[in-house]
Amino acid sequence: MALSTQPYKGARDFYPEDMRLQKWMFGALREVVESFGYEEYNTPLLEPLELYLAKTGEEIVNEQTYAFEDRGGRKVAIRPEMTPSVSRLVAARRQEAAYPLRWFNIGNRWRYERPQRGRVREFFQLDVDIFGVAGIEAEHEIISVADATLQAFGAQRTTYTINLNSRKLMNYIFEDYLGLDERQAHDLAKLIDRKNKMEADAFAASAQEIIGSPETTAKLARLLATKELDDLPDEVKQQPSVAEITKLHELLQNSGVTNSAFDITLMRGFDYYTDIVFEVFDNHPENNRSMFGGGRYDGLVGLFGVEPVPTVGFAMGDLTLQNFLETHKLLPTLKPEVDLYVVLVGDVYVGAQKILANLRENGIKVAVDSTGRKPDKQTKTADKKGIEQVLFIGEQELADGTFSLKNMGSGESQSLTIQQLIDKLKK
Amino acid sequence: MALSTQPYKGARDFYPEDMRLQKWMFGALREVVESFGYEEYNTPLLEPLELYLAKTGEEIVNEQTYAFEDRGGRKVAIRPEMTPSVSRLVAARRQEAAYPLRWFNIGNRWRYERPQRGRVREFFQLDVDIFGVAGIEAEHEIISVADATLQAFGAQRTTYTINLNSRKLMNYIFEDYLGLDERQAHDLAKLIDRKNKMEADAFAASAQEIIGSPETTAKLARLLATKELDDLPDEVKQQPSVAEITKLHELLQNSGVTNSAFDITLMRGFDYYTDIVFEVFDNHPENNRSMFGGGRYDGLVGLFGVEPVPTVGFAMGDLTLQNFLETHKLLPTLKPEVDLYVVLVGDVYVGAQKILANLRENGIKVAVDSTGRKPDKQTKTADKKGIEQVLFIGEQELADGTFSLKNMGSGESQSLTIQQLIDKLKK
Repeated sequence: MALSTQPYKGARDFYPEDMRLQKWMFGALREVVESFGYEEYNTPLLEPLELYLAKTGEEIVNEQTYAFEDRGGRKVAIRPEMTPSVSRLVAARRQEAAYPLRWFNIGNRWRYERPQRGRVREFFQLDVDIFGVAGIEAEHEIISVADATLQAFGAQRTTYTINLNSRKLMNYIFEDYLGLDERQAHDLAKLIDRKNKMEADAFAASAQEIIGSPETTAKLARLLATKELDDLPDEVKQQPSVAEITKLHELLQNSGVTNSAFDITLMRGFDYYTDIVFEVFDNHPENNRSMFGGGRYDGLVGLFGVEPVPTVGFAMGDLTLQNFLETHKLLPTLKPEVDLYVVLVGDVYVGAQKILANLRENGIKVAVDSTGRKPDKQTKTADKKGIEQVLFIGEQELADGTFSLKNMGSGESQSLTIQQLIDKLKK
Repeated sequence: MALSTQPYKGARDFYPEDMRLQKWMFGALREVVESFGYEEYNTPLLEPLELYLAKTGEEIVNEQTYAFEDRGGRKVAIRPEMTPSVSRLVAARRQEAAYPLRWFNIGNRWRYERPQRGRVREFFQLDVDIFGVAGIEAEHEIISVADATLQAFGAQRTTYTINLNSRKLMNYIFEDYLGLDERQAHDLAKLIDRKNKMEADAFAASAQEIIGSPETTAKLARLLATKELDDLPDEVKQQPSVAEITKLHELLQNSGVTNSAFDITLMRGFDYYTDIVFEVFDNHPENNRSMFGGGRYDGLVGLFGVEPVPTVGFAMGDLTLQNFLETHKLLPTLKPEVDLYVVLVGDVYVGAQKILANLRENGIKVAVDSTGRKPDKQTKTADKKGIEQVLFIGEQELADGTFSLKNMGSGESQSLTIQQLIDKLKK
């Protein structure tokens, strides 16, 4: 029986035209993060499963990891995210590292989810983290980097909002303001994390079930309706974490990042966040959803038996970004990266080699048609590939030293020496 | 219990300094293959296990794949190689593709092997393939690309040899010249593939066991001792595949690739090769081994229920290449890609933001020390990171508009305006 040509469910094949788009996106992202002094790292695709058990969050570990036993009986998982791995690398050099470390990675992650718009099983992600800065400057920088990536693509700040919240603030609210126990606080956090995906009634019922007391549930409902820090009840407003969020707002405003907002319902799924969390929200009515986010996770490096390291980071998925750029019409049309297609007229493959080598040495990307087909078939191939410039090489041209160059867009031809061709294409 | 900081056995962590080296190598490889008109593609990390059962070779499939069942009961494998995946992509667009297709991929592959020098479980590989050229021009181009990659790193052609053989020739030898049946031919091919890793006696004994007849075994031994095409017995020399190898030698010579040689013991492990095979051999006495190789595999696309497509390709592993470059002293020392480290003197984080933004907009990669430590500690950090240029920003500098730039290599300092700094660093 013939093998299937379909890719694995929820994963994508990247033909050259798809890959061009991804490379263009990642190229722009790399440029931005490197301008802030971030350096690229990488880690193995497989990690011990236990790396994710501690802090990644139950849903991902129990339902979404690609976990299995290797041939040596080790329980491993394909990385569903990068944060535990990068924390492992920092922990291994905890003592000797020159802090602050600014590190980024772009690579694939795997989660067993139901494929849907903007969600696939193999996705690619930019992870950006700063290690060793305890102050709010780290949050300011990481959010500035996140903002700068979208700015680099030409996005207007009216099209997205940077929502801010604080896990410390939420812990205070759960434990002190609402008087919940640890289990209730945990369950309520998970529930609030899903709030935007639920009907209001269902949310209210689930909150009531976790909290028990109708009065406390009503108190929570009033609090979650708060849109501004100023509207928080006085006793909440006096929390140091509120001052932190205010300070962060100011720092962002000072850098021209004018679109940050307080969002008390913002939780972020991962268990490892310890303080400020943020997410970037796509305001377009068609998307209208959280695109990506991050926050401070000061404890994770400490799980490896070393002193913890203060850390702030974010991660951005390729498909979400691509949807955002498509919706806001920020995607360019990309041509193949081949500069020149060479059509061979007659049996001149051997004779053409010196010219091909010369062009390549001059940095020109040149593909030669070596199929031996008739010249018009070769030319049609260039056209089908979308390559604009076609050079014809035959016995006569090799003898004369002048060659016909055809522009497939305009249909115009011109006669050139190789040096003239090089000068023309190098521009 | 604390989590381990070790990477998964046989896989490597890439700290920024390791990543720099890998990016430098892959960047050079990309430049070469793109100069020949090759375009990058990618495929999912996971494929159905059955994709490898047909032609990848028993050892890899049965002993070395990372195979498991996903949560939906699908039998999958982490790709041990790229050839079946890329054949799948071509098969899916068999009809409409504009041949010749020139495609490449750089990415990770996984094989469960015993880690040793030059061999790891997660390795990165460049795969280069041309689809749709039936003639020897395809072999010539693919081997030229392989040669050009090493040339780009500055390798001398005396330091490596390009060995050539033909599966068609070997099939003739096994079936007609030696009169073996299909099973014997298969087993003998696998044995010859391991010849260089075996003692001569052990090889002879195993050959005898497969072949049976001592006369035929002796005939094989005489044949395998042949070093030149010219020294082959007449009836073998008359085979069309010998003319093909001769023609390929000539084409390579004509392009300046002067270091090709016939090697009758060259088999290549994969079952899918159908005609010419080649490998690049490291001549250095310390390595003295096959580095990488490839060949023609005209049948693989056809396994997907479509008309086959003539295909030639090769694959090159990162670690083997790195060993080669190390041994032949072709690896550079790479500095961090951060252009400037900014030391903040006093509480000027907010005041420095406009300057940092200005530098970044001008394409300068700038990391700011936001730890709030004393200036000398910040400067030491820059030094430890190996960043050469350090800029000092304090209240006085912000008021004056001139800043002190220190070169950590020479120890010299100079006073500059921001515009002067930009002009200096942009050079």
